[in-house]
Amino acid sequence: MFFGRGGRYVSGVPEAPRLSHSEEIFPEELVLAFRNHGVPLEALRWPITPLGLHYLLTHYDIPAVDPNSWTLEVGGRLERPMRLSLEDLRARPQRTLAVTMECAGNGRARMTPRPVGQAWLVEAVGTAEWTGTALRGVLEEAGVLPDAVEVVFAGLDHGVEGGVEQDYQRALPMAEALDDDVLLVYEVNGVTLPPQHGFPLRLVVPGWYGMGNVKWLARITVVDEPFTGFQNSWAYRLRSGPDEEGVPVTRMKPRALMVPPGYPDFPTRRRYIAPGPCRIEGRAWSGHPPVTAVEVSTDGGGSWETAVVADDAPSPHAWQSWSWTWEAPSPGDYELCCRATDGRGHTQPTEAFWNLGGFTNNVVQRVPVTVLG
Amino acid sequence: MFFGRGGRYVSGVPEAPRLSHSEEIFPEELVLAFRNHGVPLEALRWPITPLGLHYLLTHYDIPAVDPNSWTLEVGGRLERPMRLSLEDLRARPQRTLAVTMECAGNGRARMTPRPVGQAWLVEAVGTAEWTGTALRGVLEEAGVLPDAVEVVFAGLDHGVEGGVEQDYQRALPMAEALDDDVLLVYEVNGVTLPPQHGFPLRLVVPGWYGMGNVKWLARITVVDEPFTGFQNSWAYRLRSGPDEEGVPVTRMKPRALMVPPGYPDFPTRRRYIAPGPCRIEGRAWSGHPPVTAVEVSTDGGGSWETAVVADDAPSPHAWQSWSWTWEAPSPGDYELCCRATDGRGHTQPTEAFWNLGGFTNNVVQRVPVTVLG
Repeated sequence: MFFGRGGRYVSGVPEAPRLSHSEEIFPEELVLAFRNHGVPLEALRWPITPLGLHYLLTHYDIPAVDPNSWTLEVGGRLERPMRLSLEDLRARPQRTLAVTMECAGNGRARMTPRPVGQAWLVEAVGTAEWTGTALRGVLEEAGVLPDAVEVVFAGLDHGVEGGVEQDYQRALPMAEALDDDVLLVYEVNGVTLPPQHGFPLRLVVPGWYGMGNVKWLARITVVDEPFTGFQNSWAYRLRSGPDEEGVPVTRMKPRALMVPPGYPDFPTRRRYIAPGPCRIEGRAWSGHPPVTAVEVSTDGGGSWETAVVADDAPSPHAWQSWSWTWEAPSPGDYELCCRATDGRGHTQPTEAFWNLGGFTNNVVQRVPVTVLG
Repeated sequence: MFFGRGGRYVSGVPEAPRLSHSEEIFPEELVLAFRNHGVPLEALRWPITPLGLHYLLTHYDIPAVDPNSWTLEVGGRLERPMRLSLEDLRARPQRTLAVTMECAGNGRARMTPRPVGQAWLVEAVGTAEWTGTALRGVLEEAGVLPDAVEVVFAGLDHGVEGGVEQDYQRALPMAEALDDDVLLVYEVNGVTLPPQHGFPLRLVVPGWYGMGNVKWLARITVVDEPFTGFQNSWAYRLRSGPDEEGVPVTRMKPRALMVPPGYPDFPTRRRYIAPGPCRIEGRAWSGHPPVTAVEVSTDGGGSWETAVVADDAPSPHAWQSWSWTWEAPSPGDYELCCRATDGRGHTQPTEAFWNLGGFTNNVVQRVPVTVLG
């Protein structure tokens, strides 16, 4: 995903993948930040993220797809391979599911040394209501052969990454692909998928980081041996060095984010809070739901207070709201933090989990604020 | 807009405004880049930018507005001041207008020395279909008094900028405010304004840079002397040093942008083009329409070819498409550029126009590409 020499990028063809790390922020990272949108943190106030505020990560370009000529090819280790039009898919049983989705690289820019590239701080998340049809129904109708082990999803987005020219492709293990809640999606928040969310069809895999939710789907291929494509075998893996095989990135770790309280200074985003009680609130989620606790610190993580976590997730796969009231803080500067604990008892760390590609860093959010006198 | 000491930001209260410039890119600029979205350049292929891909600049936070209790106060130098609900506004004569809108800071990060802050490269633009009612009708019904000189528009977005705590406010000269095409807008691209575009009501001033298009409108005040608020008297002005009064930023300069051809490398956005003829296309606009010419260079601006500019603007206030075919380029590395000329005969420069705040830099776009063998 990130490569270069001496901290500077080099172009990807035919250079072999080489990760690079730097304190310096490069102009290329600004280009990526402007085109791959984050959620403004005040948008955490909405249980369903308004269209246009959900995070986006497009590895290559958003493709232009003609929905009239587009079809989905469903093939590989199946008794009855098929080709489905958008009409065919819309005629199938319909489901709508609210899903919180987070980029696996969220938190990358909070690592030291910092992996260069898509330099997410904390904002690569959103919750949407996705409407489509269950993948399971399509696969069952096609008849999965007994030797099937994985399902490969190929998008129409085409580019170069790590020196490899490719269509974006990701595989899911068979058991995950047959989960009832994995959807082939053609609508988001009640409207036709806009181009940036995968028009005309995308995959949604609840609970997993975003890389599995393949957009602009063109082909679904059931395979009888593990997929070795770039995104599975190289990119989205946790490794401490380039020679390690690494461990696949799968489900989201727990994370709580707060709506930064008070009002901001424009360029620095420093927050100012009026005197008196201050309600601190936000959302928390995990790929192993539910979130069982959220704690808040007003001293940079030195001590922690227990927030109220609401039982208000829009679905079992979506975030929950939480809140805590900071009673009459004294004027001065503070660093607010929050951290979530999930259904497996995992809690967010106060130190970043470092890995070469900069994935799954759910270190606690830090929000510097000034309480006014 | 940008201030600090020694190239580093300092918080804005009670520090007086101090501009800073740096080659170094700061983490605060990444935060701004992720929350203030740019248009992915391949989205220039659509005449109306899909919802969610139009550029966004929010100085402070996106406010949460209850449309049931919200009203618009129309006051000041008027015979009949009024207060309008959203229903009142929707009951007025309705107009829909396609408008190309660009941030005045677009191109800022291409200046040397670089003004630190909202570090737009070229992507702060979009075209939307805005639906609302003419401001002129409201003002005429309210009866503008003869001593009126400007109209001040106040939003509900609140924050600190240049050491000044403020609601975002901008004034327009009376003659501009009475232009038939200045709209009070409650829908975009056929849907209710989403929060980030100014729900429940915003101003749209065709032809002007974005700063005049005040979002989350709360008050319209007709005044009998020039407005001295921060955004008019300090922020959006062209000046070569901090002691200059400067010249107000008003209408958009001409600009052409191309859809980067071929396919990209993920982190660097370097483009690869297959051998053979290559169609280069994009959009061009100006606050002084129409665009009368677009030229393309394949050698970094050394020589220029004439593109075909289509007479296809979605409205007189929106961009036009252009195209040019690059016949059989030889394999190798190239730097593609494009430049527009507008109705006043102004052409984009190949060197950046520098000013302290980093405004209106319409220097030509440069797209490095590799033609494959």
